[in-house]
Amino acid sequence: MQLAIRRDSDTPTYRQIESQIRSLILEGRLPAGARLPAERVLARHLGVNRTTVVNAYRELAADGLIAGRAGRGTVVLGVAERAEASAEPAPVPLAWSGLIRPRLRSIQSPLVRRVADLAARQGTISLAAGIPEILTSPHIALDKTMGRLLDSCRESLLQDSPVLGLMHLREELARRLALKGCSRPAANQILILSGSQQGLYLVAQLLLEPGQAVLVESPTYVGALEVFRALGARLIEVPVDEQGMRVSAAEQIMAHVDVRLIYTIPNFQNPTGSVMSAERRAALLALAQRHRVPILEDDLYGELFYEANPPAPMRALDRGGFVLYLGSLSSVLGPGLRLGWLVAPPALIEPLAALRRTVDLHPSNLTQQAVCELLGDGSLDAHLAWVRRAWASRRDALLDALESHMPPSVRWGRPQGGLYVWCALAAPLNSRELLEEAANEEVVFVPGNVFFADGQGEAYMRLSFAHLSALDIAEGVRRLARAVKRLEKQPKHDGPSVGEHPIV
Amino acid sequence: MQLAIRRDSDTPTYRQIESQIRSLILEGRLPAGARLPAERVLARHLGVNRTTVVNAYRELAADGLIAGRAGRGTVVLGVAERAEASAEPAPVPLAWSGLIRPRLRSIQSPLVRRVADLAARQGTISLAAGIPEILTSPHIALDKTMGRLLDSCRESLLQDSPVLGLMHLREELARRLALKGCSRPAANQILILSGSQQGLYLVAQLLLEPGQAVLVESPTYVGALEVFRALGARLIEVPVDEQGMRVSAAEQIMAHVDVRLIYTIPNFQNPTGSVMSAERRAALLALAQRHRVPILEDDLYGELFYEANPPAPMRALDRGGFVLYLGSLSSVLGPGLRLGWLVAPPALIEPLAALRRTVDLHPSNLTQQAVCELLGDGSLDAHLAWVRRAWASRRDALLDALESHMPPSVRWGRPQGGLYVWCALAAPLNSRELLEEAANEEVVFVPGNVFFADGQGEAYMRLSFAHLSALDIAEGVRRLARAVKRLEKQPKHDGPSVGEHPIV
Repeated sequence: MQLAIRRDSDTPTYRQIESQIRSLILEGRLPAGARLPAERVLARHLGVNRTTVVNAYRELAADGLIAGRAGRGTVVLGVAERAEASAEPAPVPLAWSGLIRPRLRSIQSPLVRRVADLAARQGTISLAAGIPEILTSPHIALDKTMGRLLDSCRESLLQDSPVLGLMHLREELARRLALKGCSRPAANQILILSGSQQGLYLVAQLLLEPGQAVLVESPTYVGALEVFRALGARLIEVPVDEQGMRVSAAEQIMAHVDVRLIYTIPNFQNPTGSVMSAERRAALLALAQRHRVPILEDDLYGELFYEANPPAPMRALDRGGFVLYLGSLSSVLGPGLRLGWLVAPPALIEPLAALRRTVDLHPSNLTQQAVCELLGDGSLDAHLAWVRRAWASRRDALLDALESHMPPSVRWGRPQGGLYVWCALAAPLNSRELLEEAANEEVVFVPGNVFFADGQGEAYMRLSFAHLSALDIAEGVRRLARAVKRLEKQPKHDGPSVGEHPIV
Repeated sequence: MQLAIRRDSDTPTYRQIESQIRSLILEGRLPAGARLPAERVLARHLGVNRTTVVNAYRELAADGLIAGRAGRGTVVLGVAERAEASAEPAPVPLAWSGLIRPRLRSIQSPLVRRVADLAARQGTISLAAGIPEILTSPHIALDKTMGRLLDSCRESLLQDSPVLGLMHLREELARRLALKGCSRPAANQILILSGSQQGLYLVAQLLLEPGQAVLVESPTYVGALEVFRALGARLIEVPVDEQGMRVSAAEQIMAHVDVRLIYTIPNFQNPTGSVMSAERRAALLALAQRHRVPILEDDLYGELFYEANPPAPMRALDRGGFVLYLGSLSSVLGPGLRLGWLVAPPALIEPLAALRRTVDLHPSNLTQQAVCELLGDGSLDAHLAWVRRAWASRRDALLDALESHMPPSVRWGRPQGGLYVWCALAAPLNSRELLEEAANEEVVFVPGNVFFADGQGEAYMRLSFAHLSALDIAEGVRRLARAVKRLEKQPKHDGPSVGEHPIV
C-alpha cells in the first residue's frame, strides 16, 4: 500500500490518508479481505501521529469500507459486507410468492415430492423410479465412445449447433424411423431436443391457449399432466384399457368438446403398460382427421418390447400430417444425456424451432456427438438387444415376486414391454395410505393418484423394475406385501372406501 | 420364405399362399423392402401353376401389402407405402398455421434470419456472430478433461441429475460468486441451466402474465426480446448510454407504468458494450426496491473484462432479495456445452425448479460433470486469463481497422470488455441497406434494428470480434468500408433519412 502525504496541502493529513485508501478500495486495488497495516505501523511508516491514522481508519469504517476483525486486525470489506455495515436499514424483503403467476405456484404434486423424499431414505428400495439403470450393459463403453468422439469432432464440441440439431444425427434418426414402417422423414422435419419432455413442452406451448382442451389418457405420464397444467390447458381424460386409449370414448368426447390436441403413449404406456392395438391406432388417427386435431404420439418406450414388436407408429399411417412423433433415448440409455427428438410436419418445424430458440437456443453439441458415436458404431443396437433380455427378466422377477407374496387384494397386469407394472388395489386398501405403510417397511412405489388428471386413482399403484436387481425386486415386493397385509388388518376408519377396479 | 401347401385343404391353393405371405408381412418377418420370389420361381418351388402364384400376389397387391417395382421384381411395402397404395384417398392435410398460437407464429425477426443466411455464404466474413471461438485456447484440453471425467464419474454420466443440478457444481459456482463481492449464496439458491437463455425463459414465464410490462434496455439482447414477445409481455424500453441503463429514465417510466420485471445486462452490454456504473447499479436497485419489482441481472459477459474489472454485481448490494442473477459459460467456453446458472432467492427456487421440470426435467449429467472437471483443475481460470488477452487484442485489431478504413460517417465506441463494438451510422447510411451492400462485398454484421424493441435502430450496427483472427477482422472491415463508401455515393432515393446519433 503506497500512500503519499503532502505536508504543504490544505487537506488534513488524516483526510489525505483516508481518501487514498478509499480510492484503493473502490478501484479494487485493495480487494475485499485485504489487511490494512496496524495503525501504529502505518503511522511510523508515514511519519505521522498514531491518532492521525486512527482518525483515517475511523472514517473509512463509518462508511462501511473497512472493519476491525478479531485476530486479523483491520480488513477491507467486500461490497456485500459494506452494504451490511452501512447505516442504512435493510429493505423489506421482496414478497416473491405474490409475484409468481398463480397457475405456476404449485405445479408439482405434493404426492410426487413425498414419494421422492421417501425414496431418498437410506436403505429404502424404490419401486418408484421411472428411470432405468444401464450401467451393467456390456455394450455401452463410454470410454471408447468418448475417445472416438474426441478423435472425430474435438473441434466442434464447444461450438454452437443448428437449432434443429446436427444434420448427421437427424439423418440417422430418420433412417431408424423408416425401419419402423414409417415413411422416412426429411432430416429437416426432425428437431433434436434435450429429452422428450422438452418436445411435450414445446408442442403444448405452441398449440394450446390457456383454457383450450387437450385429450389425455387416463391414467397417463405425470410430466405431461404437469406441462398441460402449467400452460393452463383444460385436461380431458379418456380411459385406457389393455388395448390402449379407448378411442370410442374419445369419439364421444370429441363430439361435444373442442379438443385442440390429443396426447397418447401408444407403446407400453406409462403407467399402465398397455399397447394400443393397430385397429385403435387407425381409429384414433381417423378420428383426429375427422376433427382436424393433431396427435402427439409419445413413443418413449417403443424400443422396449420384450415379446412381440408393437404395431407400427401412428405416424406410419398418417398421410395428412396430423401426427407429431416424439422419441427419446432416456428410456434406453438413462436420462443423464438428455436427448430426444420430435418429428413434425414441415409447416410446424419453423415455429417450433423459433420457440425452441427462445427456450434454450439449441441442443448441446457434446451430447449430440456422443449419441452419434453410439448410434454409428452399432453399440446402441447391441445395447437394445441386451436391454430387452435383461429387463424382460427383471419384469419376470417382479411378476414372480408379486405372485409369491401378494394377497388377493392386489392384482396386476403383465406388460409386454416398457418399465412398469400397474397394480389395482381392492378395498379397503388405498395407495396413499399404503405408501406411508410401505415407507415404514423401507419400500416405495408411485401411488396411482398422480397419473390421473382428476387426482383420483387411489385404487392403483405403479411398480418399476428396470433399475433393480432381481434380488432387490424380490425383497422390495416382500416388504410391500407386508405393508399391504398390515393395512388390510387395520380396522377401517372413516376414509372413503375403494371398490374393485379393473387393472387397466 | 417357407410356405406349406396342404393339397387336402378346402382352401384354394392361391389363398393358402396369400394368407401365409400376409401373415409373414403383418408379423414383420417379411420386412418392408424384402423381395418376393419371382412368380415362376415360387410356382416351381411349390409345385403349383404359375397362375396360382400370380393370383396370390394379386390379392396381396390389392390390399397394398406388396407391389411390383421396376427392376426389383415384387417387394413388400412398408406401412406407409401400404397406406398410399390402398384405395382410400389421402385425407386433406392438416392446416397447421391456423393451429399455432397467434403470438408464436413468427417469433424470429426476418432480419435475424437474413443475417444468418448471408453469413452462411461461402467466403463471407461474419462480423455478426455472437459466439466466441475458443478452439485455439491452450488451456482447454478436452481430451484430458474427458479422460478424468470417465475416471471419476463414469458411473453417473447416464443417470439423472437433481433438477437443481449437481451439488458439487452448485457449490463451486457459489464459491466463485463470492469472489465477485457477493455474499456467498447457499448451493440450493442456484439452479443449473442449459445455458442462460433458459434462465431468461423460466424467469419470464414464471413472473410475466401476458400484457404485463417488462423494462428492457434499449438496445438489448435480441434473444431476450424474443422471449418476452413469445410470452406476450409488454416491452418498455429504457435508453442505454456509456454508463449503462439510464436509471433516471427508468424512474420516470416506473412512476407511471406497473413494471413487473427489470431486465439488464450491466457488464459489457449486448450490443453496446456499456458497463453500468457502480452509482447506477445502486440507483437501479434502490428504484426496484421502492417499486417492489425484481431485477434480472444477466451477467453473461462479466468475466470478459480487458481493462478494469467491472463494478460488483447488483446482487452484491441486494439485501432484500430483489435480484435474480444469471451466469453462463457460453461466452467464455463456447455455446456447445449449454451450461448456465441462475441464483435466486430461496422463495423462488422451488417454483423455478418445478417449472424447469416441465420444460426439460433436469440438466445433462454429462455436461455438468465435464464443467466440474474444467472448474476443478484450474483450466477454466487459465483459459479466462488467456481469453482476456486474446480477445482484447482482437478488439484492438477491430478498432484499428475501423480507424484505418472507415469514413467519418461511421463512429464507434471502445468497449472495455465483452464481444462487440457498437457503431453509429450518419445519414444517409442505414443499416438495412448497408447489410445488403456489405453482403455483396462478402461481409456481414448485425443491423441495429434487431436490438430495439420498437424495431428502430437503423442508424446502428453491431460488429463482433472474438471469433475472428486479426487478419480476418482487418479484411472484414476493409470490405465493410467499401460498402459504406459506395452507399454514401449513391443518390438518395425516397427512404427515410437518418440523422446524427450518439454511439450509445
